[in-house]
Amino acid sequence: MTAGMIHLNTAGAGLPAPGVTAAMTGYLEAEATAGPYEAEQARADDLTSRVYAVLADLVGAQAEHIALFASATDAWCRIACHLTVPAGSRIWTTPYEYAGNLIALQRLAARRRCVLEVIPVGSAGDLDLEWMRAHLDDRVALVSVVHMPSAVGLIQPVEQIGALLAGSAAVYVVDACQTVGQIRVDVDAIGCHALTAAGRKFLRGPRGTGFAYLRPDLWERIDPVFYDLHVAQALSLHEHRCDVDTAARFETAERGNAAVLGLLAAAEYARGASPAPTAEVYAALTATIRQTPGARPLMPGSRRGGIASFTHDRLPPERIRDALADDGLNTWVGVGAHTPLYLAAAGIERFVRTSVHHYNSVADIEAFGRSLRRVCAA
Amino acid sequence: MTAGMIHLNTAGAGLPAPGVTAAMTGYLEAEATAGPYEAEQARADDLTSRVYAVLADLVGAQAEHIALFASATDAWCRIACHLTVPAGSRIWTTPYEYAGNLIALQRLAARRRCVLEVIPVGSAGDLDLEWMRAHLDDRVALVSVVHMPSAVGLIQPVEQIGALLAGSAAVYVVDACQTVGQIRVDVDAIGCHALTAAGRKFLRGPRGTGFAYLRPDLWERIDPVFYDLHVAQALSLHEHRCDVDTAARFETAERGNAAVLGLLAAAEYARGASPAPTAEVYAALTATIRQTPGARPLMPGSRRGGIASFTHDRLPPERIRDALADDGLNTWVGVGAHTPLYLAAAGIERFVRTSVHHYNSVADIEAFGRSLRRVCAA
Repeated sequence: MTAGMIHLNTAGAGLPAPGVTAAMTGYLEAEATAGPYEAEQARADDLTSRVYAVLADLVGAQAEHIALFASATDAWCRIACHLTVPAGSRIWTTPYEYAGNLIALQRLAARRRCVLEVIPVGSAGDLDLEWMRAHLDDRVALVSVVHMPSAVGLIQPVEQIGALLAGSAAVYVVDACQTVGQIRVDVDAIGCHALTAAGRKFLRGPRGTGFAYLRPDLWERIDPVFYDLHVAQALSLHEHRCDVDTAARFETAERGNAAVLGLLAAAEYARGASPAPTAEVYAALTATIRQTPGARPLMPGSRRGGIASFTHDRLPPERIRDALADDGLNTWVGVGAHTPLYLAAAGIERFVRTSVHHYNSVADIEAFGRSLRRVCAA
Repeated sequence: MTAGMIHLNTAGAGLPAPGVTAAMTGYLEAEATAGPYEAEQARADDLTSRVYAVLADLVGAQAEHIALFASATDAWCRIACHLTVPAGSRIWTTPYEYAGNLIALQRLAARRRCVLEVIPVGSAGDLDLEWMRAHLDDRVALVSVVHMPSAVGLIQPVEQIGALLAGSAAVYVVDACQTVGQIRVDVDAIGCHALTAAGRKFLRGPRGTGFAYLRPDLWERIDPVFYDLHVAQALSLHEHRCDVDTAARFETAERGNAAVLGLLAAAEYARGASPAPTAEVYAALTATIRQTPGARPLMPGSRRGGIASFTHDRLPPERIRDALADDGLNTWVGVGAHTPLYLAAAGIERFVRTSVHHYNSVADIEAFGRSLRRVCAA
């Protein structure tokens, strides 16, 4: 950890992996010295080939099925917002859907006259897979699942969902924002059509980066509003052609190359690193919260990862976060409205979110516990 | 200039303005030390307020009418691709339209069953404003003009076009990729609904940055596929509301803050700098090209700026660029297909593009001339 600071906010953005900041600052200096387009040409292999190969390797995909975007939101919307779902289709989501995704689904449903439906959960908070089996039919055109919801940190059974949906008409989109870099993500095992991810969280890459795995049988079901010039040609006033048979067809050509090289450095590091926070650290974190008088854990689901959120009977979350920050602990105040169907629906407006990665130790959690007890006793 | 290199490729990407690289590298170090979300909070005023105010000031707009994007392409497509033009409308563009914009217009026209029409030019290459006056009617729903086409560098009479379109039904979109930071750009004088710009070119900001001026009367004519959570709320499974009454409603929330701070530094510098290349430098550049045996200038239009392109009777453009590069001169090989209605239509596949900014001197052009004469004599 950095001197004097314990980072329990990887679910917001992680600390850059070794090599990430240097890759970016070094490249920015090269741009200033050689010229930005000239610096790009000198790193063409990394920027146009290697970054795709390493990201693909990280999620068990082929390089041609990876596309780079300016954020996970950008990645998700380029795909899910432009699906050619038939009018009258059913779109399935979960109670843990991220509000940004949900708004996009609502707008898609309105444009295509589809019906949005929520997969129910059991009392423990786990998705009701039996309900899915019983209700799946050919009208289900899109299933959107967040692999690990940012606010509440359960791990959805994305592989089981994939097996269940296999052979159906549904496009299966997994938002893996919080899982890539944290737990093993294998697109073949998941069986999804698309998987989107952020650079900045558990992958420990730069802000302003995201990527997507896009299975080729999905490509023709996406109707993008444009094709950029690295993949397409305008043939005349009225005609164009997309020439490129890779997932890059959905990208915008221009991007911050420094950030792309930072993402590459992060992905290379993640391939070699043991990704998850240790079970011991996570157990210490959840036990600390559960044992704090007045704390109300927001920890649904039987399979959980590096995120643990809570409210407090008496203290506003901002007060807790600020007191923790005074003790050198980074945590975050989450907004219930960002998980509207689960948290806002339960009347939870704001909460404290903690998150741990492989760089966090049991000693970090002990420091967190001391600080938390102090503020809660005050 | 950097030791040993003369940059004649600002139309690709400019050399970073003083302070830009340091703003970015310093912020990346702060992210690594404090945590990325925590570093953001420490610079919240710059990132959420000041950058809008300074960019607005640069183009004569109000801060509330500026939106930030991950590139000029991203800015342009978020607007132009999602316009609610009536079915059967006419969409006007110019022969100098950028192929990326044209592809997006073709897809918009197909979706909305519109007709794409090209404003003709006179023999000098200037747009035929009389034709526009004569043919303008209520069916013209969108007029797309590139302020200074990247390939051929004429300056379009955007103010006269704006005056001509005033009071018509047309949405007027100006792509100012090459002009912001180079010549005075004033959105009120232009009278456009939207103006989009890149950070990386004559503004001398970072790669992966762009912004747009969006006039409020345009906002309701754009139907975005999503609203992000910095501006909107999901109220229920079926409803959401966009709460924010600024142009930021069209943005994606997540972005590379280092790049945004680099853009801010560039915009602050540009406000104080004399933006254009000197007339003397540009005159020397065009004279050098015109006087080179075998060179064929691609320099249409009566009003021109810092870009001068050419082909050569005998030598392929790559050969010229490489020979110039050996002498420490950055130039670029442009692709005719990127200006399909003008260059590709004339059979020009590739060409040499040179571009100059205020950091270029007559001595730079003399060095360019010596190098160019040497390769052309070889």
